[in-house]
Amino acid sequence: MADSERRQRGVEMMKKVYAGKVVTPPPGVMPFSDLMLEQLFAEVWTREALPIKERRLVLLGVIGALGEKDTFQIQVRAALENGELTGEQVREVLITLANYAGYPRAAGLIGPTEGTIAAVEKEKSG
Amino acid sequence: MADSERRQRGVEMMKKVYAGKVVTPPPGVMPFSDLMLEQLFAEVWTREALPIKERRLVLLGVIGALGEKDTFQIQVRAALENGELTGEQVREVLITLANYAGYPRAAGLIGPTEGTIAAVEKEKSG
Amino acid sequence: MADSERRQRGVEMMKKVYAGKVVTPPPGVMPFSDLMLEQLFAEVWTREALPIKERRLVLLGVIGALGEKDTFQIQVRAALENGELTGEQVREVLITLANYAGYPRAAGLIGPTEGTIAAVEKEKSG
Amino acid sequence: MADSERRQRGVEMMKKVYAGKVVTPPPGVMPFSDLMLEQLFAEVWTREALPIKERRLVLLGVIGALGEKDTFQIQVRAALENGELTGEQVREVLITLANYAGYPRAAGLIGPTEGTIAAVEKEKSG
Amino acid sequence: MADSERRQRGVEMMKKVYAGKVVTPPPGVMPFSDLMLEQLFAEVWTREALPIKERRLVLLGVIGALGEKDTFQIQVRAALENGELTGEQVREVLITLANYAGYPRAAGLIGPTEGTIAAVEKEKSG
Amino acid sequence: MADSERRQRGVEMMKKVYAGKVVTPPPGVMPFSDLMLEQLFAEVWTREALPIKERRLVLLGVIGALGEKDTFQIQVRAALENGELTGEQVREVLITLANYAGYPRAAGLIGPTEGTIAAVEKEKSG
Repeated sequence: MADSERRQRGVEMMKKVYAGKVVTPPPGVMPFSDLMLEQLFAEVWTREALPIKERRLVLLGVIGALGEKDTFQIQVRAALENGELTGEQVREVLITLANYAGYPRAAGLIGPTEGTIAAVEKEKSG
Repeated sequence: MADSERRQRGVEMMKKVYAGKVVTPPPGVMPFSDLMLEQLFAEVWTREALPIKERRLVLLGVIGALGEKDTFQIQVRAALENGELTGEQVREVLITLANYAGYPRAAGLIGPTEGTIAAVEKEKSG
Repeated sequence: MADSERRQRGVEMMKKVYAGKVVTPPPGVMPFSDLMLEQLFAEVWTREALPIKERRLVLLGVIGALGEKDTFQIQVRAALENGELTGEQVREVLITLANYAGYPRAAGLIGPTEGTIAAVEKEKSG
Repeated sequence: MADSERRQRGVEMMKKVYAGKVVTPPPGVMPFSDLMLEQLFAEVWTREALPIKERRLVLLGVIGALGEKDTFQIQVRAALENGELTGEQVREVLITLANYAGYPRAAGLIGPTEGTIAAVEKEKSG
Repeated sequence: MADSERRQRGVEMMKKVYAGKVVTPPPGVMPFSDLMLEQLFAEVWTREALPIKERRLVLLGVIGALGEKDTFQIQVRAALENGELTGEQVREVLITLANYAGYPRAAGLIGPTEGTIAAVEKEKSG
Repeated sequence: MADSERRQRGVEMMKKVYAGKVVTPPPGVMPFSDLMLEQLFAEVWTREALPIKERRLVLLGVIGALGEKDTFQIQVRAALENGELTGEQVREVLITLANYAGYPRAAGLIGPTEGTIAAVEKEKSG
């Protein structure tokens, strides 16, 4: 595959994964971003054996266990906007985290997650 | 709910989660096991808003991120035996872990996971 | 045990663990909170074989190792208000964390922890 | 304090912490061991504001959260041999870990910990 | 070595490690700081077998994997000010973290790290 | 770049990183291995801004902090065989880990690491 085609494929996949909200620097400006587009989005997320929703559930487990609070909200928002999970199901993810990654990891996520759920519900009904 | 009913509910749910293979000590012998049955299985896994398959995908992400290799195999085996995931999809979980929890976490899981996939496929075809 | 009794037991234990400062939503509003009260506080913290102080020391080790800074302060404050630990002993917990969980985990806790110690001392003398 | 005095202090403290079972290489042979004796044991564990039992409870939380299974058993054995914790209390530490560091971390510790409790009880009654 | 000499050695090493910017409380005021100076800086960083630059690279890996964002910036700033790493090389450290500790750990470090690189470059050219 | 060229570049880089000892399945047989070669080795390790030795030091910090004992030995062996680090310097990496990721993480690495150092020294002198 030509490099430009590969990049384009990454940009399109990233839009699907993040529900359309994507800003990427031009090629060559920021190597981290180039690799993320050309490897992670063009060649990992595009693998069809595991659909986006299923891959994201694994991801929510990983990010929750790592305690990366900001990234967790970005993924929750995308899952809600894409209609992959309902607000109630996102709350179940937190309950699962409390039991499998421990209460301290989950506790810090409750406030921001409720905020994200409320914001997306408002946008959808707005 | 009466305590004995709650426990029974936990045992039944645990069988569903682990594809029927469950040995539990009698009540009162091992407090850790009592709590696991009466809380985790009777009152968390039974919550229907997130089906078993979806909850397990979150779990595979958590356990993979924590690097708990033995527990990971137990969950992979159950997912395969329950028909929630194919072998190919389990391999996608490892690829997701490599990118989101880092190559070292995923690398140590490849050998045992391939072993589990092969063992379950043999049992199913046997 | 009836469900309402179990919940009441959880609320009372939670008050002991957090030195009286507890706000909980009514039953059925927030499943995460229901489970925390009915499982973690009603059925784990009430286990008398390990007194609150000893269980909290284990907890401070866990939360420190996980790097959950906000939750750590909540536990430190409760331990000080309950008279389980002195300010000097809380500082020893940080020294222990530096050696057993690494300096980076402990370093970020020093500022907030000194703030918590000062605040509680002021309240007690005020 | 003279260097040899400092080292001697570390060796003596290490014996207390590990219930008398200590083998250390001669000074200068293994820098890691020198630092562990002269810093960790001579200058951290000797700090009297937090007694050995309390420091070890923090430590069990840290090691449990990190998932270092072998080191966890060494500490459990020492706590039991020193009479700091009973077997029942060690089991409570595991229950605490399950809730605060997640079930996967605690689950892998149950088998070896029961083995350690049984071994120490046999030695004590033997 | 006399205690005051040891402390002085720690202060001097700490200045080298942090590119001259060091404020330390007087001896005896804050035990955590005393131990950090007398152990970590006087007796670990001074070990010449591994030069500062090499030890810091290991450290950046550790702190990145732990996700300690503030501490990471302090080390990046020191590495840049000491001329151990260029801005481009710091960006490579983030790319390495994305692959070996997972994208979520690295993603949260990009913004602050670019800020640190820009600030140091401005100071140097200013 | 053509796909076959990219893969070939990955195989060659992997040989440099692992001191020549590399077995890879043919393309298409194992997707995880394909991605590791074509992304991690062909496009990350080949980035010249951070030489192999420096990237590996970051990596040793990450893997040590994660507690991935087997992977740590593979990297130590490669660093020794490539002449990037001496045995004495590898021991300093462990001392750094003890202080920055905590003693429990480093303690479990000492035995296997000494074994790896001894094995490589024997091979080199043999």
